[in-house]
Amino acid sequence: MKLLDKIQFPKDLRQLKKDELPQVANELRKFIIDIVSVKEGHLGASLGVVELTIALHYIFNTPKDKLVWDVGHQAYGHKILTGRKDIFTTNRQLGGISGFPNRKESEYDDFGTGHSSTAISAVLGMAIASKLKGNPHRNHIAVVGDASIASGMAFEGLNHAGVTDANILVVLNDNAIGIDPSVGALKKYLTNVKKGTAKDENIFECLNFDYSGPIDGHDLPLLLQELERLKSVSGPKLLHIITTKGKGLQKAEENQVVYHAPGRFDRLTGELQKKPDSELPPKYQDVFGHTLVELARKNKNIVGITPAMPTGSSLKFLMDGIPDRAFDVGIAEQHAVTLAAGMATQGLIPFCNVYSTFLQRAYDQIIHDVALQKLPVIFCLDRAGLVGQDGATHHGVFDIAYLRCIPNLIIFAPMNECELRNIMYSAQLGLDRPIAIRYPRGRGVTMDWRTSFQKIEIGVSVEVKKGTKIAVLSIGHIGNLVKKIIAELPDSEKIGHYNMRFIKPMDTKQLHHIFTHYSRVITIEDGCKIGGFGSSIADFANENDYSTKIDILGIDDRFIEHGTIDQLQGIVGLDGASIKRHINETLNEL
Amino acid sequence: MKLLDKIQFPKDLRQLKKDELPQVANELRKFIIDIVSVKEGHLGASLGVVELTIALHYIFNTPKDKLVWDVGHQAYGHKILTGRKDIFTTNRQLGGISGFPNRKESEYDDFGTGHSSTAISAVLGMAIASKLKGNPHRNHIAVVGDASIASGMAFEGLNHAGVTDANILVVLNDNAIGIDPSVGALKKYLTNVKKGTAKDENIFECLNFDYSGPIDGHDLPLLLQELERLKSVSGPKLLHIITTKGKGLQKAEENQVVYHAPGRFDRLTGELQKKPDSELPPKYQDVFGHTLVELARKNKNIVGITPAMPTGSSLKFLMDGIPDRAFDVGIAEQHAVTLAAGMATQGLIPFCNVYSTFLQRAYDQIIHDVALQKLPVIFCLDRAGLVGQDGATHHGVFDIAYLRCIPNLIIFAPMNECELRNIMYSAQLGLDRPIAIRYPRGRGVTMDWRTSFQKIEIGVSVEVKKGTKIAVLSIGHIGNLVKKIIAELPDSEKIGHYNMRFIKPMDTKQLHHIFTHYSRVITIEDGCKIGGFGSSIADFANENDYSTKIDILGIDDRFIEHGTIDQLQGIVGLDGASIKRHINETLNEL
Repeated sequence: MKLLDKIQFPKDLRQLKKDELPQVANELRKFIIDIVSVKEGHLGASLGVVELTIALHYIFNTPKDKLVWDVGHQAYGHKILTGRKDIFTTNRQLGGISGFPNRKESEYDDFGTGHSSTAISAVLGMAIASKLKGNPHRNHIAVVGDASIASGMAFEGLNHAGVTDANILVVLNDNAIGIDPSVGALKKYLTNVKKGTAKDENIFECLNFDYSGPIDGHDLPLLLQELERLKSVSGPKLLHIITTKGKGLQKAEENQVVYHAPGRFDRLTGELQKKPDSELPPKYQDVFGHTLVELARKNKNIVGITPAMPTGSSLKFLMDGIPDRAFDVGIAEQHAVTLAAGMATQGLIPFCNVYSTFLQRAYDQIIHDVALQKLPVIFCLDRAGLVGQDGATHHGVFDIAYLRCIPNLIIFAPMNECELRNIMYSAQLGLDRPIAIRYPRGRGVTMDWRTSFQKIEIGVSVEVKKGTKIAVLSIGHIGNLVKKIIAELPDSEKIGHYNMRFIKPMDTKQLHHIFTHYSRVITIEDGCKIGGFGSSIADFANENDYSTKIDILGIDDRFIEHGTIDQLQGIVGLDGASIKRHINETLNEL
Repeated sequence: MKLLDKIQFPKDLRQLKKDELPQVANELRKFIIDIVSVKEGHLGASLGVVELTIALHYIFNTPKDKLVWDVGHQAYGHKILTGRKDIFTTNRQLGGISGFPNRKESEYDDFGTGHSSTAISAVLGMAIASKLKGNPHRNHIAVVGDASIASGMAFEGLNHAGVTDANILVVLNDNAIGIDPSVGALKKYLTNVKKGTAKDENIFECLNFDYSGPIDGHDLPLLLQELERLKSVSGPKLLHIITTKGKGLQKAEENQVVYHAPGRFDRLTGELQKKPDSELPPKYQDVFGHTLVELARKNKNIVGITPAMPTGSSLKFLMDGIPDRAFDVGIAEQHAVTLAAGMATQGLIPFCNVYSTFLQRAYDQIIHDVALQKLPVIFCLDRAGLVGQDGATHHGVFDIAYLRCIPNLIIFAPMNECELRNIMYSAQLGLDRPIAIRYPRGRGVTMDWRTSFQKIEIGVSVEVKKGTKIAVLSIGHIGNLVKKIIAELPDSEKIGHYNMRFIKPMDTKQLHHIFTHYSRVITIEDGCKIGGFGSSIADFANENDYSTKIDILGIDDRFIEHGTIDQLQGIVGLDGASIKRHINETLNEL
């Protein structure tokens, strides 16, 4: 690491000669591989932009020039070259640096990015500000992948930028893949451009951008030359570069989906070091995927939709099994939801699988296109609750609150694999309104999850255990932890446990029973307290004149950073020890 | 009305000869003008598509073929030709037909549309369903304006449709205007297409659509011929037609912004019949607009942003006064919010004005781009609460609930014009986090609203009136009604009234005072009860062990239809009589 050792900040990089930069690229790539192979994280995206990262910081005057990495998981090289080389081993760990650009972390991180397709809008805002503040020559760069630029929000940014004289450069990093392979007409068009079979006019030129490319994004001299040229071109520009995701690690290049975030691997061979899964309960994702295929084989009206997450959500199982009834629509959550609504009007039964945090992108469509029309779309909210090391941008902790206020919507959270299967089964039997099913990232609780289907009645909860003093009301997977804790308590006979299952409609019969039989209620949810499940119980009590004190356990009114899920649950007070302590303290008060 | 009299449904239209259709167009246009001139409603958009409406229903086999009108205010002609001619006088009135397509109303309304840019996604869903259900030759048509097609969601739909073989026809109704004139690079490009100055390849062909046009959308024979031809072309197609908004009423053609929804007018001359405004208090919109200009003249960092609503929001005042600091970004709420975030990183102070119902489109951006980064964007949520005759698609009743769960966000609702001015003044003095200011459609309460600015401390409420028994906590403009009612009560000395102003952060000092001095609390808000302001007060009481009963007055868990604001407030129990009755009944209980 002869050259990389000398670089702490971009100013050090700029001291080097241009012909030394390819060696920096080799060293930087090796540095990323060495650390990610042990510490885990996102690999492929950052390997693909090693040359680009070096070229941008070499040519442009960062941090004065503004640089925003769209979907920040491509920014590892950027972090290493901007003062964070020595702490890069703490990447994504509790108290360590974030896996995404983060304004709190460095003046070189001009904008936090975790969700995709925000960079053009952010950079345009900065460029307009520079003009107004008397810095008309400042450069503003957004690096955007081909999967991200196909999202509606990116188009909105391009459409506005094209009629301004703002000094922005969009670098289109075209590697034909997001997490899964890119899809859609724009991707097809870009492929034609690369092959030279597109016609004269360019789609970006139609939008008034100065277009150049495509060029090889791993050819450092060419990149330097082109960026140097573009630095003095004013107005909105787009440079189209072709890169290979995972560049420099053969296995990562060959299997780009797996090596997006591969876990531990051998830094030389790339060989994965995953442990065999067979002795662990399944992931909720896989339960969803397998169950959907099983149901779809019997019910011809079932279709599946994912906005660009076929592998992560396991909708891939349906894409492989019944390809004409499974749809990866790209990073297009808004479209995914309204597409599902359109399908539902014609009697199809759409399972629309969206990560909880990304469903925020389709909030209006849920209200306006689905719930208002009472269309029986089945939303599967993957990665609900704390998601761990992806951190604040990705936790799915707001969904209960933002969905609960929507009329006509059923909201359900399964406590385990069987409940997930059974609610999917029940929903496809035919509902007269939409349902949202939220479940967490990670594994369930049982090896014997392939049980036969049983219908779940809408709005009916489960009494897990009777008690005498305190009723604990849990929602979703965290109920398993609650069950275990209660069983371990010396006074466990005093504690009742209710798996409420439905956030909406509420099981009012059960709630009346609870409030008339217990002297204290504790609610537990893996989501924000404000407007959440516990709050709904407090509203019920107030409305029905129960003055029973209710302790609401959930996530306080703040953003939660990154760390393992266990660590974060400890921080927010949803780990076993905290819950146990709370129950014991409450028992002592009674 | 010789011909129109014979038409109840499209089958009747199809009995006519093609050369009779221009007369139908004349009669239909006159019919729309006659009724809208008296009953009010959206005028210009429907006048512009009279020929298209007739041609579509004549050529295609509706309702078997599917037809979706994007932003449904262009669908008056469609409604009149599909069984609703005789009840068209009830348009937008309580109990009457909706001003937008509505699935409950007619089998010809294939999809409810009120917010823009949803039609392509909906129609694609229907077309995919037709294929799967064995109707491969069915036609599926989306009529989309040039302002709507520039929204990100429409692009997502096009991007997906372009790689399918779905039988969809997008009719691009290009009149160069939404409610205000269209903006953006795509609009510029379409202008070049019309002028013949665009190059060979077409932006829609880049997205794999079979493009035809542009043709004159008022030339019925040409429209019929082209639609007939396209009926037998399979796969995704786009027909570009040029129309004039307001076509057939000279004043409406000349002043398209005013005649979008002109109120009453003379059906022959087009002359507006508005009463002079001067004796009424100002609209909140105008208070916002004038105040922003006033503040921006002193504070150079202030900028204003609107997604396509400059006239409606009165951001137009800033666009006229300080054009380089005011931005109409088109129908692009997502972009608007993240653009504001980008500006805020550079020290600008963005006032981002979005209608409450449309901010649902930018929910993720508020969380991920603004609140997470604590960027001091000032959101002005226009048309919060019940909006009246636009109905269920447009009421701004969810905002308190969906915003309240977002950390770092201040939420404020002014009771009157002065509070709106003062919070705008206070916010631009410098906040360390974002704020959302919600205010209703319509007028304030005073002629003397141009008061000098006073700083409002964050989280501080106002005791409007002391009392002894019942505390009424109101939020926002509805507080004026509450104040009036309390003054009229015989037992008014028993009633305290608190204008809470901040939904978040809560004025906990005031709340402790209230809960220790009153035996009953009533909360009143112009928004949904679930997760709303009253719910936050109930949570506060529960958390602080107050067992005071709280009556939460707000909107129940259902969608509210159209009617005047007064009528709707009566229906939801937020009118003066209902509130008075509730307070009296509560007094009797004590």
